[in-house]
Amino acid sequence: MSLQMTSDPSKPTLYQQVAGRIRSLIDGGTLRPGDRVPSVRRLSSQMSISISTVLEAYRVLEDERYIEARPQSGYYVRTPATIPPVPTKTRSDRVPLEPGADDLVVRVISDSQKPGIVPLGAAIPSAEYFPTVRLNRILARVVRDDPGTSQSYDSIAGHQGLRVQIARRLVEAGLSVTPDDIITSAGAQEAVLLCLRAVTKPGDTVAVETPTYFGLLEAIRSLHLRVLEIGTDADEGVCLEDLSEAIVRKRVAACVFVPNFGNPLGHKMPDDRKAELVSLLARHDVPLIEDDIYADLAFEGDRPVAAKSFDRADNVLLCSSFSKTLAPGYRVGWVVPGKYRPLVERLKFSTSVATATPTQMAVASYLESGGFDRHLRRLRRLYRDQVARVACTVGETFPEGTRVSRPLGGHILWVEMPQEIDSLEVYGRALEEGISVAPGPLFSAADKYRNFLRLNCALPWSDETEDAIARLGRLVSAIALR
Amino acid sequence: MSLQMTSDPSKPTLYQQVAGRIRSLIDGGTLRPGDRVPSVRRLSSQMSISISTVLEAYRVLEDERYIEARPQSGYYVRTPATIPPVPTKTRSDRVPLEPGADDLVVRVISDSQKPGIVPLGAAIPSAEYFPTVRLNRILARVVRDDPGTSQSYDSIAGHQGLRVQIARRLVEAGLSVTPDDIITSAGAQEAVLLCLRAVTKPGDTVAVETPTYFGLLEAIRSLHLRVLEIGTDADEGVCLEDLSEAIVRKRVAACVFVPNFGNPLGHKMPDDRKAELVSLLARHDVPLIEDDIYADLAFEGDRPVAAKSFDRADNVLLCSSFSKTLAPGYRVGWVVPGKYRPLVERLKFSTSVATATPTQMAVASYLESGGFDRHLRRLRRLYRDQVARVACTVGETFPEGTRVSRPLGGHILWVEMPQEIDSLEVYGRALEEGISVAPGPLFSAADKYRNFLRLNCALPWSDETEDAIARLGRLVSAIALR
Repeated sequence: MSLQMTSDPSKPTLYQQVAGRIRSLIDGGTLRPGDRVPSVRRLSSQMSISISTVLEAYRVLEDERYIEARPQSGYYVRTPATIPPVPTKTRSDRVPLEPGADDLVVRVISDSQKPGIVPLGAAIPSAEYFPTVRLNRILARVVRDDPGTSQSYDSIAGHQGLRVQIARRLVEAGLSVTPDDIITSAGAQEAVLLCLRAVTKPGDTVAVETPTYFGLLEAIRSLHLRVLEIGTDADEGVCLEDLSEAIVRKRVAACVFVPNFGNPLGHKMPDDRKAELVSLLARHDVPLIEDDIYADLAFEGDRPVAAKSFDRADNVLLCSSFSKTLAPGYRVGWVVPGKYRPLVERLKFSTSVATATPTQMAVASYLESGGFDRHLRRLRRLYRDQVARVACTVGETFPEGTRVSRPLGGHILWVEMPQEIDSLEVYGRALEEGISVAPGPLFSAADKYRNFLRLNCALPWSDETEDAIARLGRLVSAIALR
Repeated sequence: MSLQMTSDPSKPTLYQQVAGRIRSLIDGGTLRPGDRVPSVRRLSSQMSISISTVLEAYRVLEDERYIEARPQSGYYVRTPATIPPVPTKTRSDRVPLEPGADDLVVRVISDSQKPGIVPLGAAIPSAEYFPTVRLNRILARVVRDDPGTSQSYDSIAGHQGLRVQIARRLVEAGLSVTPDDIITSAGAQEAVLLCLRAVTKPGDTVAVETPTYFGLLEAIRSLHLRVLEIGTDADEGVCLEDLSEAIVRKRVAACVFVPNFGNPLGHKMPDDRKAELVSLLARHDVPLIEDDIYADLAFEGDRPVAAKSFDRADNVLLCSSFSKTLAPGYRVGWVVPGKYRPLVERLKFSTSVATATPTQMAVASYLESGGFDRHLRRLRRLYRDQVARVACTVGETFPEGTRVSRPLGGHILWVEMPQEIDSLEVYGRALEEGISVAPGPLFSAADKYRNFLRLNCALPWSDETEDAIARLGRLVSAIALR
């Protein structure tokens, strides 16, 4: 083992390198559950590093549930709580549905924002994860340096400097676009809504994966559209066979999919399947609205390419934002609408004239000044660890028969509880205990997922968080025993 | 005459007081066109003020076209160019129409934002009118003081502190609302769109005044609604008789009116007619979406009350923003949706989750720290003077037969050219000369107003502006002579 001190802040520090080395030994199966890991003293002398560095590394691995200390005996690879995965496949519906019209969505969001609540419900990242102080300092500077621009209506397409930065970042997504191909938006939600309005008319059917984000179902409902839920697979992504059949059998006006780390499942569609999807839809002239909001949050490796990277027909409308990676409250998102650009631009005008100028200027300057990728690397590790911790605590405290998703990116965990548990009851009871969760039925228009919960993992790990999840588990267990 | 020095910046300075006094003598008819005004020397000794103060006052009155200097002879009340008013009444349509689908709107907006263009087209106030430096300083402070809030998703309903300030300001509009009655939005445009979506479904008919703002027609078109254009009257506002007949005869799902200084006419509906309108619509259970965005910009006297102040049935959805008074680029607007609040809140979530947080925080803090009303007083005078100057230059340079609106607030002038002039041709020719204008047909779905133009007057008066309008006039005159 050879490790070197580094002063480059983008590189892991020494103790992180040590932790990473042990982690990979465990992940790779060299060290197995129950095995003793090298003693602190031995590792210290072996690697010529200080005792305190090893202790710090082991502390990290303990926090991550990789190892556990046994009194008088040393550190051991932890035996994971046996929490099996949710089924790898979900099933497609045969008929389009109109999403329902109750106000549960608004209540779940509002609950998650109440002071004192443990916000496991909405997918709202904690402020602590973001370079807020730096970003705000940049905001202050850019509006001071260019007051005229800062207060004026932006162009409908959005801030030119921001679009330059987004175009550059999209190279990593496999895209080659110019700033003029991009329209900025008040977050990805506005982007998706604009796209839906551009490519559908009332009464049309829109295909989505199941389960799918409730904000998307809300948007579909609000536009008087119907939704057709297509099954998805952990390894393959959305089921192309069912989709193909649906397109032939029924009129599908558009698809809205999240090929990279969808909400709530966190799957990643393989690239060859993305290519197949794009070509299938192009053949039938069905536009694809691709929500790519979680793509920068891969737990391992590079950012996966977007399905749009395979788009020869300019038929994919790619939507994303900085809400999960930088500053949700800034409301800065964008869309690459392909051949639908004129329609989307016109709709953007009649929806909100233009995106807020100062926050766009700040994000542009932040991206230009560098450091976003370094921040993302750190954020991915944090989110990955948080998801692992939440899954582990769920495994320890939820009743027998509970299963969890195996996300590959993002900050969300999808939990299947035993059949008899009603997540709406869990939602109500948890709220009484100061915990907000998102009940499963929100993620379908077809009254599915009644025994599922979605848990937001992007909140700082603390005794309070762990305790909240444990209380949630006991609460569900009590219902199961009834 | 008694005038006093004052150091309160909200009060007019000495020369402004002198100018105001002479102006009121002219407006009141004591001094008439062609009359000589008191000589500089005489007024100086009479009022015990310096020669330079009187000269400064007379310079202002010259700029405003109240007086003119005649060489060797002194100052005289100017004979206004004879520019008659546009007809006081417009006519109602009998059938609902689907607004057309060309992209002229986007082009007009984009043209107005091009560097080097004289932006008479879009209703975009010049940055110079606003307290931008102070507002930006406040923005920098609030995000520094509360980074956690600044970067987080706001609540769907919007920033609490801002809603407190808006509720306070609405007292002047004759409303008594709590912060919970308000939902913030990305400008008034998003607010109106949310309201339309809350109270209509595709295929419905929406009544508007004619002529009406093209952004509203765009919103109606984008929602697959039809529009019924109701005539309006300079003294009475929208024609209640025609509206009443339309409601009885056809199904009108909603009305969108601008009772205070509508765009493009600048009329003010009298309060008793507002009350009658609200009661008529309540009787027929037709919701009124009231766009109140220009209400703070009365040329004379207080802000007029909103129609919503007469709303006993909670049937009026009041929309407004700070885009014409403070900072268009901040995209901060709001709606008081009355009994439609739950629907509007849910739509706000699926449209953009929440309004951008930092700009809301800044506007809240700006309003709380005082000075907005003082700024508004100044802004009203400026806009009034600009509108007068533009009208005067139009009168001097446009061909015989041209008529202009007589707005009572706002910053917009509506120009009727001789019958044979095609404003689309004027639009194209003007653009070649570096001038953007808004052609009349944009303001109706019924191919009306072909010989009308809308001119934005909220740009700083300068030789360049005056010259641009004069060139526009010559250009129109040349077409008229053809």
